[in-house]
Amino acid sequence: METADAKIKIAIDAMGGDNAPFSVVAGAVMGYRILPPDVELILVGQRHHIIEELKGLHAENLPIQIVDAAEIIEMGEEPAEAVKRKKQSSINVGMNLQKEGKASAFISAGNTGAVMASSLLTLGRLEGVARPAIAQYFPTEEGVALVLDVGANSDCKAHHLFQFGIMGAIYSKHILKIRNPKVGLLSIGEERSKGNELTIASHKLLDSSGLNFCGNVEGRDILKGTADVVVCDGFVGNIVLKFAESIEGFFTGLLKKTIRGNLFANIGALLMRPAFKSFKQSLDYAEYGGAPLLGINGVCIICHGGSSPKAIMNAILVAVDMVRKQVNKVIQEKLKENGNAIEQIAKKENKVSQ
Amino acid sequence: METADAKIKIAIDAMGGDNAPFSVVAGAVMGYRILPPDVELILVGQRHHIIEELKGLHAENLPIQIVDAAEIIEMGEEPAEAVKRKKQSSINVGMNLQKEGKASAFISAGNTGAVMASSLLTLGRLEGVARPAIAQYFPTEEGVALVLDVGANSDCKAHHLFQFGIMGAIYSKHILKIRNPKVGLLSIGEERSKGNELTIASHKLLDSSGLNFCGNVEGRDILKGTADVVVCDGFVGNIVLKFAESIEGFFTGLLKKTIRGNLFANIGALLMRPAFKSFKQSLDYAEYGGAPLLGINGVCIICHGGSSPKAIMNAILVAVDMVRKQVNKVIQEKLKENGNAIEQIAKKENKVSQ
Repeated sequence: METADAKIKIAIDAMGGDNAPFSVVAGAVMGYRILPPDVELILVGQRHHIIEELKGLHAENLPIQIVDAAEIIEMGEEPAEAVKRKKQSSINVGMNLQKEGKASAFISAGNTGAVMASSLLTLGRLEGVARPAIAQYFPTEEGVALVLDVGANSDCKAHHLFQFGIMGAIYSKHILKIRNPKVGLLSIGEERSKGNELTIASHKLLDSSGLNFCGNVEGRDILKGTADVVVCDGFVGNIVLKFAESIEGFFTGLLKKTIRGNLFANIGALLMRPAFKSFKQSLDYAEYGGAPLLGINGVCIICHGGSSPKAIMNAILVAVDMVRKQVNKVIQEKLKENGNAIEQIAKKENKVSQ
Repeated sequence: METADAKIKIAIDAMGGDNAPFSVVAGAVMGYRILPPDVELILVGQRHHIIEELKGLHAENLPIQIVDAAEIIEMGEEPAEAVKRKKQSSINVGMNLQKEGKASAFISAGNTGAVMASSLLTLGRLEGVARPAIAQYFPTEEGVALVLDVGANSDCKAHHLFQFGIMGAIYSKHILKIRNPKVGLLSIGEERSKGNELTIASHKLLDSSGLNFCGNVEGRDILKGTADVVVCDGFVGNIVLKFAESIEGFFTGLLKKTIRGNLFANIGALLMRPAFKSFKQSLDYAEYGGAPLLGINGVCIICHGGSSPKAIMNAILVAVDMVRKQVNKVIQEKLKENGNAIEQIAKKENKVSQ
């Protein structure tokens, strides 16, 4: 909730992620040291583990609050089922803090599906939003592009994609500080008549949205940075994301095979490593903190399972920024402006699909 | 047509591609020199240009047939319209040779959409095939994976994907010589319940198909080589393909920026170039010739616009192989085996979509 409370309280899932609780607690401590005094941090998870990590970091005396949560949802668990069964999981407990107004945001590097499910069950959707979406940063030649959705919704309708465009543009403008973000629709072929049924219908909507819509963008345009915000359904978005994440491993393996025994080529590979690493890190959102879950009635940032302390720290900064800039309020206002159009389309689309 | 004719005649679009007619004619000449005597080549296009190129290659006396075609469909032209208007284009004339039984296969590095459209108009679909598909090679850690469809069909139904699986497996077995190709369904999440409506329905079909079906594969599994054949709709396939094609340019650009002035890093980049190049070449099918258009009533290979003579030569070899192995006949037989199942599903799906 974006409360008018003087303090901004950020709840952090201490138990989520491959290196939890260490990475998360370390990230919170790093964050604490640079945050302004009106921000408070809350670590959610098994108290004794958290205290142990804080001690290891000589940070047990910092005024970081701990809220006990007995259970942990593991990375491999079936999200919806785990969220319902493990009421005392750090994800559910943390999300509840937001619901109860005891926190303004929640950050987790845990099971993405569970964070999604818990946020929907606990906080629900933002008024006017049909489908929340996960927005993912992709590195580009120019900087960064926000791609959404990357996995929350595998089957979408045009009015969903339209809303993704609105939410992505607002996030891009207020958090990534891009003045007039270009919004592109991921499709095949640049012409408006090209694509599948979903994108052709979505093109029309986006074109009349008042967004800085630059039309269809193709798969090759993502890394080029043709658009600041790339809109797609969560099925396509997730496949492209996973494909992108696999590139580093593929080339590293290829290199190992082809250059064995060649000293110069070995040096070459060594020198190339930072480039691959920085590409992968951009996808792991180290630099940008985490992937915001846009469209829920709260602030929620999903971090990569392998998040470093720095990534957690950056996620905290982004969460603070989202609360301060009242991103959700802006989204709601913009959706209200487009309310009639969206409603009409939604009605029509729901009728067609029956 | 796969005729019983003693000679295998391969028609080649001399005017298609960025470096046409040079690359194509040079590729044909290279091919001629290594082909067995029962294969004949036919260059289709503007006769005087072809003769000029042959002279330049000192190959004007080779017994390569020339079939005159006055018109050229340019790369940027709207495919369906151009195919209807330019009856005398090299693509239409070449495709007609196959229809009239004067050629057994057609190869083009020209406008992909036009080749698709012309093949459908002129040759039609193979009996039992609902939708032809473009099959694309992706490099993998293990060798190569065939991904289909990569652009012929932007909206698909489960029985289409099912047929893509069958066609891809047969091509993989007979042409790529993979004994028992693993067929994967591109989706999000490995479990059968994960994905979108299309993949969940397709999973059931593929699972009961008798194919060596390894279930859902994710975006990251393509380059890993988890499956030999990756089935997806042409929208997703095309986006992943275009994204993959953009990787080389992205990293090259990234390197140029980050290593300026650093001698060692420069050397590193130089040494890495072959790895990127080989990745891109795999996608350009230099090594494997071209992307077969599977499911049309003929043999048709679509080469990358930037095809080198070697790529054209390899496409000729693949076309010969497809004719000799009677790939279309095998596909038809396999589809007949599964005919009832496909028909039932198709009926049901078509009903639902109305």
